[in-house]
Amino acid sequence: MERLTIVKVGGKVVEEEDSLKALLFDFSRISGNKILVHGGGRSATAMAERLGVETKMVEGRRITDEAMLEVVTMVYGGLVNKKLVSGLQALNCNAMGMTGADMDLIRAVKRPVKEIDYGYVGDIMDVSTRELETIIDQGVVPVVAPLTHDGKGQMLNTNADTIASELAIALSHHYRVNLVYCFEKKGVLSNPEDDDSVISELTYELYQDAKEDKVIKDGMIPKLDNGFSAMRNGVESVTITRADQLGSNINSGTRLML
Amino acid sequence: MERLTIVKVGGKVVEEEDSLKALLFDFSRISGNKILVHGGGRSATAMAERLGVETKMVEGRRITDEAMLEVVTMVYGGLVNKKLVSGLQALNCNAMGMTGADMDLIRAVKRPVKEIDYGYVGDIMDVSTRELETIIDQGVVPVVAPLTHDGKGQMLNTNADTIASELAIALSHHYRVNLVYCFEKKGVLSNPEDDDSVISELTYELYQDAKEDKVIKDGMIPKLDNGFSAMRNGVESVTITRADQLGSNINSGTRLML
Repeated sequence: MERLTIVKVGGKVVEEEDSLKALLFDFSRISGNKILVHGGGRSATAMAERLGVETKMVEGRRITDEAMLEVVTMVYGGLVNKKLVSGLQALNCNAMGMTGADMDLIRAVKRPVKEIDYGYVGDIMDVSTRELETIIDQGVVPVVAPLTHDGKGQMLNTNADTIASELAIALSHHYRVNLVYCFEKKGVLSNPEDDDSVISELTYELYQDAKEDKVIKDGMIPKLDNGFSAMRNGVESVTITRADQLGSNINSGTRLML
Repeated sequence: MERLTIVKVGGKVVEEEDSLKALLFDFSRISGNKILVHGGGRSATAMAERLGVETKMVEGRRITDEAMLEVVTMVYGGLVNKKLVSGLQALNCNAMGMTGADMDLIRAVKRPVKEIDYGYVGDIMDVSTRELETIIDQGVVPVVAPLTHDGKGQMLNTNADTIASELAIALSHHYRVNLVYCFEKKGVLSNPEDDDSVISELTYELYQDAKEDKVIKDGMIPKLDNGFSAMRNGVESVTITRADQLGSNINSGTRLML
């Protein structure tokens, strides 16, 4: 099987000109088949503010009412996605922007309302990669925005980390998939106060202990849950790193171990 | 060669819920390979207004400064495009939204400044359809937003009629292409006061006469120039019709004849 690298980036790195430029350069140099999955929350929040749409977050998750869905569809699917695509094209990387609605790539259901009504947020149900594989095999590089659809005409806002891991799992039937999550630290830290205390190999057992000891917490937990889920479902490697390490040493950072 | 139908829609029809629904239904029923090229000017103008970005038009063309480019990239590439894509997916039409930057489909140059500075408006230089043909042959239906790129990282606002005709010409090397322009009238009228005075076959000679007599004028002229250019460059048929005729009789309206 051929290798496929899936890089998930979000946060400041895709939203500030300098770091974006470096990221696109480093990403364009990754050899072989690859996919970029992006976020864009800060841009969405900024655009929402300009439009007078209130941003409500619960435990780091965006509440997506109709007005906010319009904002994220525009910002993720239009503004951020096309900035990445045109930037990669300038580096001779034949990028193809898409959401989960395009080519019916990712179907989701609107999250059922329990204690919290997240609004138009999608929980992924199905990933169909047949057409995607065809374009990947032509050398095209998909750039995926964090949006899905329900198959009934409704776009849904969907967590980019989850999109990356679900895509990785679905594509592991046809490729040896390396999934790389970029975030603001060099990796998972054994001491949250020390940015250099990167755990190079994180086993599931160590992860459980670190969660109990609150060494690993907050936004890192869903990211790692997604990562371990990918590992258990056929993905060859999952790495957590900082975007500026993509170029020099994509294997630095924290590697998950089952 | 296989047949390919390219439908260009714009104006109110894609921007009002009822007409959009009917359009997507009728388009989804067109048999065989097909592409939808869309506009979205009214939505862009409305969003620009909400953002306090001034809309300036010269002879029906939008002046696209940096702030307006951001608006059209979001609105055409995100909001309108994904509404069409998710709507078509709901009708079991496997749509794939894209701009000219995606898969390097359409390269353009920023229009040189002469009397008027149109800003970030692209004049099409090159259409590359190799990867597009691969996905069309898989049964995927491209939905193309009126945006291109310059190959150096810059998105450019580009007239949707021109995108439709340039795509039609490029794809006529591999398909028998039928290009259908939808607009607000049933076809080209011999009497602008009489909506039923549709010219069923418009020869180039008749077109020149009608232009001289001011029977055909304004926005119809670039549309027809694009249409005749397509006819001269290998496109099998060009039809001007109203969107609500797509379903019942796609061949009604005005057909161009060389």
